[in-house]
Amino acid sequence: MRLTADAFEKLHHVSTASLTSELLKLGFRNTFMKGVHPLKKGKSLVGYAFTLRYIPAREDLDLEVDYDNLTNPQRIAVEKVEQDEVLVIDARGEVSAASLGHILCTRLMCRGAAGVVTDGALRDYPSIQELDFATYAAGAHGTTSSVLHHPVDFQVPIGCGGVMVQPGDVIVGDDEGVVVIPSQVAEEVAHKCYDRDRLESWIQQKIATGVSIINVYPPNEETKAEYRKWLAEQGEKTC
Amino acid sequence: MRLTADAFEKLHHVSTASLTSELLKLGFRNTFMKGVHPLKKGKSLVGYAFTLRYIPAREDLDLEVDYDNLTNPQRIAVEKVEQDEVLVIDARGEVSAASLGHILCTRLMCRGAAGVVTDGALRDYPSIQELDFATYAAGAHGTTSSVLHHPVDFQVPIGCGGVMVQPGDVIVGDDEGVVVIPSQVAEEVAHKCYDRDRLESWIQQKIATGVSIINVYPPNEETKAEYRKWLAEQGEKTC
Amino acid sequence: MRLTADAFEKLHHVSTASLTSELLKLGFRNTFMKGVHPLKKGKSLVGYAFTLRYIPAREDLDLEVDYDNLTNPQRIAVEKVEQDEVLVIDARGEVSAASLGHILCTRLMCRGAAGVVTDGALRDYPSIQELDFATYAAGAHGTTSSVLHHPVDFQVPIGCGGVMVQPGDVIVGDDEGVVVIPSQVAEEVAHKCYDRDRLESWIQQKIATGVSIINVYPPNEETKAEYRKWLAEQGEKTC
Amino acid sequence: MRLTADAFEKLHHVSTASLTSELLKLGFRNTFMKGVHPLKKGKSLVGYAFTLRYIPAREDLDLEVDYDNLTNPQRIAVEKVEQDEVLVIDARGEVSAASLGHILCTRLMCRGAAGVVTDGALRDYPSIQELDFATYAAGAHGTTSSVLHHPVDFQVPIGCGGVMVQPGDVIVGDDEGVVVIPSQVAEEVAHKCYDRDRLESWIQQKIATGVSIINVYPPNEETKAEYRKWLAEQGEKTC
Amino acid sequence: MRLTADAFEKLHHVSTASLTSELLKLGFRNTFMKGVHPLKKGKSLVGYAFTLRYIPAREDLDLEVDYDNLTNPQRIAVEKVEQDEVLVIDARGEVSAASLGHILCTRLMCRGAAGVVTDGALRDYPSIQELDFATYAAGAHGTTSSVLHHPVDFQVPIGCGGVMVQPGDVIVGDDEGVVVIPSQVAEEVAHKCYDRDRLESWIQQKIATGVSIINVYPPNEETKAEYRKWLAEQGEKTC
Amino acid sequence: MRLTADAFEKLHHVSTASLTSELLKLGFRNTFMKGVHPLKKGKSLVGYAFTLRYIPAREDLDLEVDYDNLTNPQRIAVEKVEQDEVLVIDARGEVSAASLGHILCTRLMCRGAAGVVTDGALRDYPSIQELDFATYAAGAHGTTSSVLHHPVDFQVPIGCGGVMVQPGDVIVGDDEGVVVIPSQVAEEVAHKCYDRDRLESWIQQKIATGVSIINVYPPNEETKAEYRKWLAEQGEKTC
Repeated sequence: MRLTADAFEKLHHVSTASLTSELLKLGFRNTFMKGVHPLKKGKSLVGYAFTLRYIPAREDLDLEVDYDNLTNPQRIAVEKVEQDEVLVIDARGEVSAASLGHILCTRLMCRGAAGVVTDGALRDYPSIQELDFATYAAGAHGTTSSVLHHPVDFQVPIGCGGVMVQPGDVIVGDDEGVVVIPSQVAEEVAHKCYDRDRLESWIQQKIATGVSIINVYPPNEETKAEYRKWLAEQGEKTC
Repeated sequence: MRLTADAFEKLHHVSTASLTSELLKLGFRNTFMKGVHPLKKGKSLVGYAFTLRYIPAREDLDLEVDYDNLTNPQRIAVEKVEQDEVLVIDARGEVSAASLGHILCTRLMCRGAAGVVTDGALRDYPSIQELDFATYAAGAHGTTSSVLHHPVDFQVPIGCGGVMVQPGDVIVGDDEGVVVIPSQVAEEVAHKCYDRDRLESWIQQKIATGVSIINVYPPNEETKAEYRKWLAEQGEKTC
Repeated sequence: MRLTADAFEKLHHVSTASLTSELLKLGFRNTFMKGVHPLKKGKSLVGYAFTLRYIPAREDLDLEVDYDNLTNPQRIAVEKVEQDEVLVIDARGEVSAASLGHILCTRLMCRGAAGVVTDGALRDYPSIQELDFATYAAGAHGTTSSVLHHPVDFQVPIGCGGVMVQPGDVIVGDDEGVVVIPSQVAEEVAHKCYDRDRLESWIQQKIATGVSIINVYPPNEETKAEYRKWLAEQGEKTC
Repeated sequence: MRLTADAFEKLHHVSTASLTSELLKLGFRNTFMKGVHPLKKGKSLVGYAFTLRYIPAREDLDLEVDYDNLTNPQRIAVEKVEQDEVLVIDARGEVSAASLGHILCTRLMCRGAAGVVTDGALRDYPSIQELDFATYAAGAHGTTSSVLHHPVDFQVPIGCGGVMVQPGDVIVGDDEGVVVIPSQVAEEVAHKCYDRDRLESWIQQKIATGVSIINVYPPNEETKAEYRKWLAEQGEKTC
Repeated sequence: MRLTADAFEKLHHVSTASLTSELLKLGFRNTFMKGVHPLKKGKSLVGYAFTLRYIPAREDLDLEVDYDNLTNPQRIAVEKVEQDEVLVIDARGEVSAASLGHILCTRLMCRGAAGVVTDGALRDYPSIQELDFATYAAGAHGTTSSVLHHPVDFQVPIGCGGVMVQPGDVIVGDDEGVVVIPSQVAEEVAHKCYDRDRLESWIQQKIATGVSIINVYPPNEETKAEYRKWLAEQGEKTC
Repeated sequence: MRLTADAFEKLHHVSTASLTSELLKLGFRNTFMKGVHPLKKGKSLVGYAFTLRYIPAREDLDLEVDYDNLTNPQRIAVEKVEQDEVLVIDARGEVSAASLGHILCTRLMCRGAAGVVTDGALRDYPSIQELDFATYAAGAHGTTSSVLHHPVDFQVPIGCGGVMVQPGDVIVGDDEGVVVIPSQVAEEVAHKCYDRDRLESWIQQKIATGVSIINVYPPNEETKAEYRKWLAEQGEKTC
């Protein structure tokens, strides 16, 4: 299930904080990944989850320094991620070795991927920061993934940062972190959240002039009317 | 791959500590589950892993109190576990809700399962302790699993207690905890470990008489000869 | 708000696990304290919360070995707890010093208190275990509370083990742990849970005979009818 | 108890590290909040604590997206904070949901508050960083506070970052973190610390010329005399 | 520095909780090890610290299954511990591999050691529990120490369970845990604590009769007089 | 054992990530410190370990604000560190007080030290960042070290960030973190890693042009030949 171009574009202009509120209204309480931060401030992320699952490594199967691109699920996955997809890695929150590095991030960027999200660590973190590519991780660690991680399969449902991620779920990231939008509600949430963010931005500017939050945040009917009037003056649709 | 009856029986008479040493000799450093303890002291466990994987719950898919036996992978798995198998649950180490309870443990016991191992919590812990059934967990929590866990698939490779578990791996538990033996080395390890444990038991009794560890632990050639002589006197094969 | 004698009695015969399920049906997901365990196995707890709040200690206010019974809120609280009340201490999960000891537990027992619950540690743990008194804690620590804790007030809403506790909430503990029942639903929950536990116990015994969970757990209409028939035979009211 | 204008001003020119040393000399060992960091580097904080206390949320009382300004203690508190006060939130160190967001920070800034300190998370972290306002938190999380936090009362003694905070205590923050000065010693500490910082700055510059720490750090009588001479040359009072 | 026989004997009859209070009166706040528990309930420990220090293992120096008794500091230490000494191991709180096992515990017991204390794990935990020997640890783990630990030296000052331990410090353990008494105050503390424990035991029995804590705990002059009278009747020295 | 000037220089141009891979090829899996980050981005570190060991503080030995340069091992160590050495502090991962501050860092810089690494916290963190000096720590904390740390000895083997550090080991740091190279393999690793990094950099640039990782990362014979040709064109030695 893909978003309309309008919804996809709007998600680039909303905050992850605001998205959690719209999702909470639909009953989803746990949508913001815990402990997952952007490597590159100011680079927003919108895309569809392509999932990759790691389990603990075992010496007979892992520990290599050079990986086999034809059999290793991590490598196969990297060459399968498509335009606008986000590689989301379930690294069990384990940050004592990396889950991906600079060259594979470069490859994903060149494939048109929207970004990378892991609840483990990334390595070559300083070099990755220099790419024009949205990357989010729980830490940085120099050690290659095979010391602790065994990539086992991809495009299965996973957990990442304590949140369920289904293949195809919509992933949005900003400087605050990463939110997972279940695919079946993503179109609706994108539109509602865009409207919410416009309203909240207007409220914030009003509060910045020195008025009290009472009647304004949340807005009462009078404030809502004032907002609708302002919106109309901007030649925009009402909330 | 199943063990010979002799090897299967021997694994009931070795310690998990001793197994980790034999596995270390084969290069496996990480075979003992972290933080997973027996609910019932004195009840040993030997069986083949039947794996079950949980990911974080989501409100539209989980939160039920009564589960559907025909669609819920946890329930389907329980009715698929066979004689001598151990249900091993990847609960991501999450102990803030249960991963299984009393009635399902009872059902598994009746199906002939060897036991249950989870790196999450069990609920109805006091009642489960009364069953004549080997159960190992990282904690106890009254809350039903659907609040935090979504059972997603079974008989796939998982992590449990920080150790890789492949379906069919040999799981051994004692009062110290749980060790995972990769299936391809389990037969060999069972025999070697039985011999190691007999030797170490003999050494311990010798040390208990007051001799120094020097030349005895580890045994030098003279001590080994003495052990072999003792073994022969017992009418047993040498190590 | 106090329970009827019937409800109060029933709560002595239900499990905390079962209570979390009834509370979940009412929308309460977070009712079981995390990391709080019984000191004395087999001693159940039912009572009304009397709350006590600790904050971090400061050298000018705390660090005493002998406390002043007239000014110290911990001491004042101990002499205010009434029959059937449970002293519930918010110790911020801090277990690096005690939050209460043997003599105060003895005093509370003599006052008719139902028990003590803390998400901190108790000291004199071995002696407290010998009292015929329900005590639950997150740990044991020899050091007196004043090194880390400043008792600041009582009978205010607190958190304990990650769960909200309002004065007067109903506290139930068994060997699995402690559940908090909001006072306004406690009467209803007590009755429903007693019925649930009877049904689940009957189901467990049925499963123990070797039948499948399908149609039985959860029970379909046929199984429910069979249960009602059995209940009627016992001369009891139906669920 | 308010500081003199001179002391208040001096606190803007001392480091939190230096303050902990002066407080240690008075016997206070635990005055620096653990895990609480500035959102905006280079923005120092001096003010009087206005405390706000959160406990775990419960579904019947919380979970709203829009808060009621007339009954919600968080909202009431925000409209009560006065000039030069710091809103200090006891969020139990819980960073899995926010404890405050952009609009309320804006309102506090407009009310003349000195800043916000929480041992929980803030949301809209990127937007808050753009305000000219001192904010300190233990993390960032997109999710609104009502999912995990119930604001229960304000202007009561609390813990924040593992340190006791009484209403009116003096809060000082710099890029290293936040220190709490008990109100009764704040005037004295402000003056002493200012002198200490001047001395330490002079010592550091001396060490930077390549001399040994011996006799200089800590200063012996000769070095102290040299410092006093330097101070006198600057036309300043001696330490 | 060794204790008098009287003091040594008295330490077998006091609680670790009580010892922390006497040490707190002397200014020592941090004397009780964190997270270190007895393997064998009811077996008290009194002895002089013989310290052993571990650091993280490295593959070229460790990873053996059979240790060399002539060069390995762990093994050398075991054969140097004398009568009434306690082997105290600084394992950095690392419980993901063992720090000692059954055979070495047996050897230490035979050498007359008072016990073993580690802030790491022990292996062969079920067998160690069967020894008539006081052992305290932070966990149990099957894996041999060489996977994570490198024994580096002994009889140097260490930390264990977050407490400084100097060689020769007096170590006391009971079911609650382990306290470290600096050697220079151990004689004094032993006597004072014995008197404290007798008084507190008398107070507890008095409270158990139903009297209030007021005037009794802590005791006012009247209560102290009553205690002294009771003591005199027992034919004992006063406190 | 000191490196050749060539090897020492090369280590300034390799990444810590790459070093872990060369060390892994030699069998060393655990060489990258956990949780230790640079205070000053972009300042690389190469030097020989000068170790300093801390244990938990005790009130009779520590708690001073002014340290004695003639007896305190921390102070003695600072005046012993030589040109190109790195002061590496074992602070047990304890970040609730500092392990070093601004003035001592200044002194070390003036002595020609290559840098400071601690798995504890630094204080005066904002001022230290302004020095042209490589510093790495696990956190920042205003409180002086004597509240929690007792410096006990130096130039002994220690653990730091979970990695063994022997005096003289080669310490390399970049923005990702810190790696420890055992001294006996440092010369070999420096050369190999420099070659690896050149190759990987060339591969990354190739991938950045849009080619697949297949046959390129890891390189097959054809790609290796292409790289050697390129290298030869640069007038450099082959890998």
